[in-house]
Amino acid sequence: MAEASATGAGGEAMAAMAATEGSSGSAGLPLGRSFSNYQPFEPQEAGLPAGSGPSPTFPALGIGMDSCVIPLRHGGLSLVQTTDFFYPLVEDPYMMGRIACANVLSDLYAMGITECDNMLMLLSVSQSMSDEEREKVTPLMIKGFRDAAEEGGTAVTGGQTVVNPWIIIGGVATVVCQPNEFIMPDSAVVGDVLVLTKPLGTQVAVNAHQWLDNPERWNKVKMVVSREEVELAYQEAMFNMATLNRTAAGLMHTFNAHAATDITGFGILGHSQNLAKQQRNEVSFVIHNLPIIAKMAAISKASGRFGLLQGTSAETSGGLLICLPREQAARFCSEIKSSKYGEGHQAWIVGIVEKGNRTARIIDKPRVIEVLPRGVMATALATDNSNASSEPSS
Amino acid sequence: MAEASATGAGGEAMAAMAATEGSSGSAGLPLGRSFSNYQPFEPQEAGLPAGSGPSPTFPALGIGMDSCVIPLRHGGLSLVQTTDFFYPLVEDPYMMGRIACANVLSDLYAMGITECDNMLMLLSVSQSMSDEEREKVTPLMIKGFRDAAEEGGTAVTGGQTVVNPWIIIGGVATVVCQPNEFIMPDSAVVGDVLVLTKPLGTQVAVNAHQWLDNPERWNKVKMVVSREEVELAYQEAMFNMATLNRTAAGLMHTFNAHAATDITGFGILGHSQNLAKQQRNEVSFVIHNLPIIAKMAAISKASGRFGLLQGTSAETSGGLLICLPREQAARFCSEIKSSKYGEGHQAWIVGIVEKGNRTARIIDKPRVIEVLPRGVMATALATDNSNASSEPSS
Repeated sequence: MAEASATGAGGEAMAAMAATEGSSGSAGLPLGRSFSNYQPFEPQEAGLPAGSGPSPTFPALGIGMDSCVIPLRHGGLSLVQTTDFFYPLVEDPYMMGRIACANVLSDLYAMGITECDNMLMLLSVSQSMSDEEREKVTPLMIKGFRDAAEEGGTAVTGGQTVVNPWIIIGGVATVVCQPNEFIMPDSAVVGDVLVLTKPLGTQVAVNAHQWLDNPERWNKVKMVVSREEVELAYQEAMFNMATLNRTAAGLMHTFNAHAATDITGFGILGHSQNLAKQQRNEVSFVIHNLPIIAKMAAISKASGRFGLLQGTSAETSGGLLICLPREQAARFCSEIKSSKYGEGHQAWIVGIVEKGNRTARIIDKPRVIEVLPRGVMATALATDNSNASSEPSS
Repeated sequence: MAEASATGAGGEAMAAMAATEGSSGSAGLPLGRSFSNYQPFEPQEAGLPAGSGPSPTFPALGIGMDSCVIPLRHGGLSLVQTTDFFYPLVEDPYMMGRIACANVLSDLYAMGITECDNMLMLLSVSQSMSDEEREKVTPLMIKGFRDAAEEGGTAVTGGQTVVNPWIIIGGVATVVCQPNEFIMPDSAVVGDVLVLTKPLGTQVAVNAHQWLDNPERWNKVKMVVSREEVELAYQEAMFNMATLNRTAAGLMHTFNAHAATDITGFGILGHSQNLAKQQRNEVSFVIHNLPIIAKMAAISKASGRFGLLQGTSAETSGGLLICLPREQAARFCSEIKSSKYGEGHQAWIVGIVEKGNRTARIIDKPRVIEVLPRGVMATALATDNSNASSEPSS
């Protein structure tokens, strides 16, 4: 362990999600639905081919690891840091702040690091927002970001704000570690089991939710999903994206994880391939199961846009994919659900580590695990169902 | 010294420079002059009133110091880091990369720190650039940034790239320090002398250079400056913005500096006021001399746009303003010009530290020191003057 070398990292998630369809936002829209209009793209348009690298324009920075690890001049310590910034993808500014922070911290968590010494915030307000919108939205984003940082045991001590056509939110997470505090993601062995700590399908859910207001798009998927199911999936995606991977990072130590990464812009296949490439042993990763937010697999198929079942659909602030010794994996999945870690943590065994040439693949017909949104229970219990509709309005 | 406390920092420069006049760039322009069109504003429009704070939208992050200082869990060490990102303001992508990196590092240098353990790059390419423009411009920006990082004794190990309407370039500089490696900017005493290590007027020069192609603007200043003088001033500004303040940071230790800051978006007066506020002693700063790139004071007056003589004109990657013991200031200014530190370092005594209530001001009629661009000598020596013109073409 602990071969702390200066290694390139970062930069992949949003490069992979950056896309072509422009939409620069208009100041006149009402606040609720307008927030994610201050973004450049429809996320599903975005995925680069898995494994195609971080960005054609940024060739030298590499995507090998989720964080960079820099040996320091001081007594065996290493500097570990990461940065991420992107554009709004949910309607709720507070949740967007939380998601942005969770997404930055996740790169540390993927290395089994549970502490963060400092967080900087990167922010732009949109020039096309009205003053009123700006004054409502910006403090909420900042509060969400700060609250998530606090949950991560750190604080935001600085940053940078600019004016830009689109809203930007992101951050820089930094920690100085002793060698035993982080797990280099290179030690998978044949026989290990792959565990995933959040369901897939966040981008599908976010897009499907936007399509509720877009009859042309909605018509292509309304045969496979109801409006209510999309709303629930969207809430579930938002909740998952805002959940820190910190508990999983801690349990990586408890259960002797051999390697991990977090699932973001390249989808589960892309990140599995990246992780496989870094292994010291001659191994390959084979994914058998895909835990997916309920109905999102059907939307992916019906729309023909995402590649969710091929593992190439981008995720935002996704779960950790962790290589664990076979005998530890089930215990990991059981332990993470314990109420002592708070609500909402889950994990699934999704694949195995075989002898191979450092690649990753999904089997031909993977088992889709439909992960029921938590809201389903609440909805089933609700007596007043008057606002819910399972039919599209157009 | 060395009261390493977690202190808010960063975020001021571009907040102060962010502005209203939009210009989203068009892909069809030729490369040379088009690069800085991928920016949102004419910089001179931008200055917030000096001392008005970092940004109305980012109230809690403070602008007290140039970098944040976080005490670590490990043996008396402190984490010092800073981030800055902004939009192109010169025509040369390579120089823009250098300037962006110099600007980030400058926040460390302002604390007397000469080392940087890690640099992350923040970058966006513009969606409105053609593929050809993108492929030419982006590698040059990255190379400029990397070269400046190398000159600063560090390396770029990661970062983030996105697509955005405007080009963005910036970075995150991080260092882990022992207490004697940094100088907290709070120990000015009555009788100290203020020294400045780069001439003022970068924003005026950048804007005046843009006006060469804007007859309406140019007509307002052509009585006080020639086109050739503007070209030389622009080159001088670019050179200064790309120069690291690292030598000055090292000499802060040699000559027992009591406090320092770097001059960026709030101008010399704004940053002097910020620095004065942080002093432990009851002192005030009084600025008597303004070293300004030749002719830029005249342009500022003629255009009525900048407030350069009032100290409120924004600077990019400006010099360090350093409080030195009186008997050390002249030696500092002499030493920094030594050829052992390479070409082009200068420094001027610009003011004094008096007893006062932690404010800063510029005297009524400050002495303007016209700093001659280095190119003047080269031009004077040139025999073929056929391309030079001192008259505007329109």
